[in-house]
Amino acid sequence: MLASAELGQSLSRQSYEAELPALRAKLLQAHLDLRGRKFPVVLIVSGADGSGKGELVHRLNEWLDPRGVETQAFWATSEEERERPPFWRFWRALPGRGRIGILFGSWYTQPIISRVCGETKRDELDSALDRIANFEQMLVADGALFVKLWLHLPRKIQKKRLRKLEDEGRLAPDDWKHFKLYDRFAKVSERALRRTDTGGAPWQVIEATDRRFREFTAGTILLDALRARLDAGPAPAVGKRAPPPAAKPRAGAKSSILDHVDLTPRLTDAEYARQLDNQQAALSKLAWAAHEKKRSMVFVFEGWDAAGKGSAIRRVTQALDPRLYRVVGIAAPTDEERAQHYLWRFWRHLPRAGFTTIFDRSWYGRVLVERVEGFAGVGEWSRAYREINEFEEELVEHGVVVNKFWLQISQAEQLRRFKERQTVAYKRYKITEEDWRNRKQWDDYKGAVDEMVARCGTEFAPWTIVAANDKKFARIQILKTIVDRLRAAL
Amino acid sequence: MLASAELGQSLSRQSYEAELPALRAKLLQAHLDLRGRKFPVVLIVSGADGSGKGELVHRLNEWLDPRGVETQAFWATSEEERERPPFWRFWRALPGRGRIGILFGSWYTQPIISRVCGETKRDELDSALDRIANFEQMLVADGALFVKLWLHLPRKIQKKRLRKLEDEGRLAPDDWKHFKLYDRFAKVSERALRRTDTGGAPWQVIEATDRRFREFTAGTILLDALRARLDAGPAPAVGKRAPPPAAKPRAGAKSSILDHVDLTPRLTDAEYARQLDNQQAALSKLAWAAHEKKRSMVFVFEGWDAAGKGSAIRRVTQALDPRLYRVVGIAAPTDEERAQHYLWRFWRHLPRAGFTTIFDRSWYGRVLVERVEGFAGVGEWSRAYREINEFEEELVEHGVVVNKFWLQISQAEQLRRFKERQTVAYKRYKITEEDWRNRKQWDDYKGAVDEMVARCGTEFAPWTIVAANDKKFARIQILKTIVDRLRAAL
Repeated sequence: MLASAELGQSLSRQSYEAELPALRAKLLQAHLDLRGRKFPVVLIVSGADGSGKGELVHRLNEWLDPRGVETQAFWATSEEERERPPFWRFWRALPGRGRIGILFGSWYTQPIISRVCGETKRDELDSALDRIANFEQMLVADGALFVKLWLHLPRKIQKKRLRKLEDEGRLAPDDWKHFKLYDRFAKVSERALRRTDTGGAPWQVIEATDRRFREFTAGTILLDALRARLDAGPAPAVGKRAPPPAAKPRAGAKSSILDHVDLTPRLTDAEYARQLDNQQAALSKLAWAAHEKKRSMVFVFEGWDAAGKGSAIRRVTQALDPRLYRVVGIAAPTDEERAQHYLWRFWRHLPRAGFTTIFDRSWYGRVLVERVEGFAGVGEWSRAYREINEFEEELVEHGVVVNKFWLQISQAEQLRRFKERQTVAYKRYKITEEDWRNRKQWDDYKGAVDEMVARCGTEFAPWTIVAANDKKFARIQILKTIVDRLRAAL
Repeated sequence: MLASAELGQSLSRQSYEAELPALRAKLLQAHLDLRGRKFPVVLIVSGADGSGKGELVHRLNEWLDPRGVETQAFWATSEEERERPPFWRFWRALPGRGRIGILFGSWYTQPIISRVCGETKRDELDSALDRIANFEQMLVADGALFVKLWLHLPRKIQKKRLRKLEDEGRLAPDDWKHFKLYDRFAKVSERALRRTDTGGAPWQVIEATDRRFREFTAGTILLDALRARLDAGPAPAVGKRAPPPAAKPRAGAKSSILDHVDLTPRLTDAEYARQLDNQQAALSKLAWAAHEKKRSMVFVFEGWDAAGKGSAIRRVTQALDPRLYRVVGIAAPTDEERAQHYLWRFWRHLPRAGFTTIFDRSWYGRVLVERVEGFAGVGEWSRAYREINEFEEELVEHGVVVNKFWLQISQAEQLRRFKERQTVAYKRYKITEEDWRNRKQWDDYKGAVDEMVARCGTEFAPWTIVAANDKKFARIQILKTIVDRLRAAL
């Protein structure tokens, strides 16, 4: 989830100053509208040291109506607090209905720190996280609106900051020591975010490098969440979750992960032929080795229409013995599948030990086409991220190697391919009215892909975004990724 | 939870034969009504060895429409299954919408057995249980109706059965060895039940001693659950849970825990005076010792109107230094409390280390008066059991000693006391119209108390049901319980 916030996003002073007055006005209005309403807003501000949490809390207090907001900073526990169960301090800090509580530090801090310092084991961290998820779920069921912000500072930015301090002679003695824990902190945080990223209380990761960007983004997220809930009518019936706000392009250009994919690289025919031979040979050997060792593989192929999924899959299967793999193309579900939970149709196709299943489109349809086309309700797709992460975690825990590819092409390249398909007789079957319809919803799909990659790009089952404007380059990238991950797994 | 199913419940052959035809007809009708509906029914049959699970599965198959039900027995895992993630075998066994799946054995079996045999640690058990709770929650959100039955065989019955087998020379070599694990099995099972006893997928514990009773009860529970859901209209909106069926008096006499309380014991004045002195002296000493050791106590007093809560509390506080305790009387919540989650008002009154809070009525109001009077919706009170258990677990984990008392009196005794209150001038303020109204709902309250004691009677925070027809006896019983538990804790 954190990698999705390493895009180098920033907001210029001009844009910030131009857009801020409108944001502040809307935010204040939303806050005033909250007053008569019967739900509390719990706003959690978390993230790495030095990511600007304190500044953000300041800013939010500046923007909101001071009579309806309270900030609770959780520093060292008091004697009063230590004498009671750990959650006592959080209960006393909860905002009442119609109010916003800004939690600066929260129930997440201690479990993460304890694990980073090695004071607790992974099972203990997980228990603590499950307790948190239950706790939040309980408040959500009671009507609370959760906005959970995680300010993420990329490694190299953190390092740059320390270097600068060092040059200026302002480095504190432990600063480099703490920096050494960066990777561990990121890993533990990622786990914490994933396990508590629920439909009712989702996480929002914000790239924290640029002050204007992070503060404007935080304000926008809070506004969207408030507005969505306020406009949804009266407080939802008990037990019914409020839909989280729809993902939106944020302020600032290039805010999409997809915009950051370099689509220019190409391979010559000769280079392609050479690498294809090498990679396929390597994959073939590794696949047999995996079979021997009873390791299974699951590949997921998603991408824009005409991005070249089919032909890429063929370059993978060419390297595999036909006895070892199966390609499962996902179209509309059968009657039997429709009678089950949406994940059921994927569970049934899981490979036996030592075999491979290749999914041509997959369970991600839930958060892509079903979300964009409205086939799944907001409650359904918004809880699917966590369900999918848990599903994939079960696969990986069992030893399955999971590879997920998103084939990225530009809108212009898609148009070129669509037109080619219309003119080349043997390709004409590949292009339908639906493809043209989907193309019109490019931005909606883009937002959905962004959120999918951000929330389901896990350390155990990462997304690989493939630059696919050049099919040859894409195929080699895919083969290489598979070979590398399989080699590492074996 | 299990102790609530040790009441010696049974059903005579006559009653069984008289009532069965109607039950079967209604059950079959409900099953036929299910066919067009868009939700699956997952019926889990679990419990101790020899509790008649197999027989029950047989019976249910006899009673239901064979075209709409499938039984899945989980025995040893197949090679096919072992080669996939553990939940694969369960996914393939899930019933489709409009169908009933009877799971004979389930995802609960392995985690419980592994823990009983000491192959896993408690944290691992908890992780497995949390995964199960999430899994069920996911299916519930998708519309599934869960009916989870636990057949409980009291220890002495199990022993009697083995003795009989031994006498008949039919004892298997390991039978006594397994019996030695009885307590451990009960303890682990109780933990499993508690952590997965959710609003959307609650457990129903059935006393399994008598075949007719357990089968009739199981059929009734299934019928009630089906009927409640079928009659609630079309499948609930996504993300909205179906309300679980209301608790009902089950078939068979004396099915209530409260009916089994012996209300006859009395104390003479002399005996009372002697014991009161002894117990209060002991409590006084122990309270100071607890204060020294920084151990806190939380007492909960609940009971029928006029059961004598106030005077019992006074006998406890007489033994305590006034600096050490606080009595919190729970009436209607304040505005500030109403603006928060219902547990908030109790969290705020938790004692500091070494002190005691006595709650005169408590958080159990949620599942008693609020449930019976309809102040809380079915979604609210049905998820409260788990919320309360988690709350109390947090207290106990922190070292707080939790004592919960239900003061039980007979309806006749209540009437006598009401009348006395009306005639004795200085007691008249104690009796209101509301008391008379509540009295009319005796049976509803009784059902709610039963469910409360069954679902929130945990090993770490047990309920003590106090025979309170004789006030003197009740007070001594309460003092003794507190002294014993405090002594054990110190």
